[in-house]
Amino acid sequence: MELLKKKIREEGIVLSEQVLKVDSFLNHQIDPVLMLEIGRTFAGLFADSDVTKVLTLESSGIAPAVMTALELKVNVIFARKRKSLTLRDGLFTEKVYSFTKQEESEVSVSGKFLSPGDRVLIVDDFLANGEAALAMARIAMQAQAEVAGIGIVIEKAFQPGGAKLREQGYRVESLARVASLGNGQVLFA
Amino acid sequence: MELLKKKIREEGIVLSEQVLKVDSFLNHQIDPVLMLEIGRTFAGLFADSDVTKVLTLESSGIAPAVMTALELKVNVIFARKRKSLTLRDGLFTEKVYSFTKQEESEVSVSGKFLSPGDRVLIVDDFLANGEAALAMARIAMQAQAEVAGIGIVIEKAFQPGGAKLREQGYRVESLARVASLGNGQVLFA
Repeated sequence: MELLKKKIREEGIVLSEQVLKVDSFLNHQIDPVLMLEIGRTFAGLFADSDVTKVLTLESSGIAPAVMTALELKVNVIFARKRKSLTLRDGLFTEKVYSFTKQEESEVSVSGKFLSPGDRVLIVDDFLANGEAALAMARIAMQAQAEVAGIGIVIEKAFQPGGAKLREQGYRVESLARVASLGNGQVLFA
Repeated sequence: MELLKKKIREEGIVLSEQVLKVDSFLNHQIDPVLMLEIGRTFAGLFADSDVTKVLTLESSGIAPAVMTALELKVNVIFARKRKSLTLRDGLFTEKVYSFTKQEESEVSVSGKFLSPGDRVLIVDDFLANGEAALAMARIAMQAQAEVAGIGIVIEKAFQPGGAKLREQGYRVESLARVASLGNGQVLFA
């Protein structure tokens, strides 16, 4: 997706060979017009996948996921990172390890919102080690729903998540694939 | 906003005289078409307020805030509830107490994204005691930005937040004002 790559080139900050900071348009400040374009692109890519629900993880996945759901005319669920007082009955819960935050957390989806027969499109802002996407796929599995596909805004193709997911048979569509972050430069795959 | 009230009547679950659960369309599962209507309504209400940024708090504020920002053609910032490893330089930080979660947390916005001259529209899903909105207003103040207004999806009018904010001179627009949750019923103001 050219518009996204342009934005990454212009505003992305390479913090290390592993970390690309895109907090000016994706995961702290958000460019809503770019999010709408991202939503339209995912909706186009998965137009024939009979998606019934979009599933993401709070917080940075929400904006692209909501726009994708808007375009696909389905609801979106954001998995919550821990149990709140108003969310306790019948949860699907999975563990997810964040390498960025160096901690394990639990993510949960209420059992009311995923059912057998659902076809789930998983959407997330980044794909690195695949931990978050795999946890969401396991949540869909708990609900006996199908994973229709996985839509990623930025895939760090030099990390193992993408290969892991594709080996397991998931259809992964990444709108920007970063091949490396060496020398302070973003190189696309 | 009639569409929102209808949704609350049909899908809202009264958990107690204080707590209204709307996790089927607002803060766990999200109805993106309703979010777009909410965004359009806020954009209309604040059309003459020269808004330059929308400010919200992760996670449940993000969907309505992104749609509002899309309609106003400005960027949106979501304040983060704690510092992550990729977000550390020049932060505006304020404390916020959550009565629902019974805990105090810190919310932060990167100093890069708010400046003197900005006119900030604060958007949030719920208004109860006003803690979150006030923390966001203090963040705008730290940045020497102006608060152009506060847009709330659901105001619990029987709790003190709305009165507190209006007394301090803020323009608060709530799309649904709940007068009471007695007898398991939602009564609108």
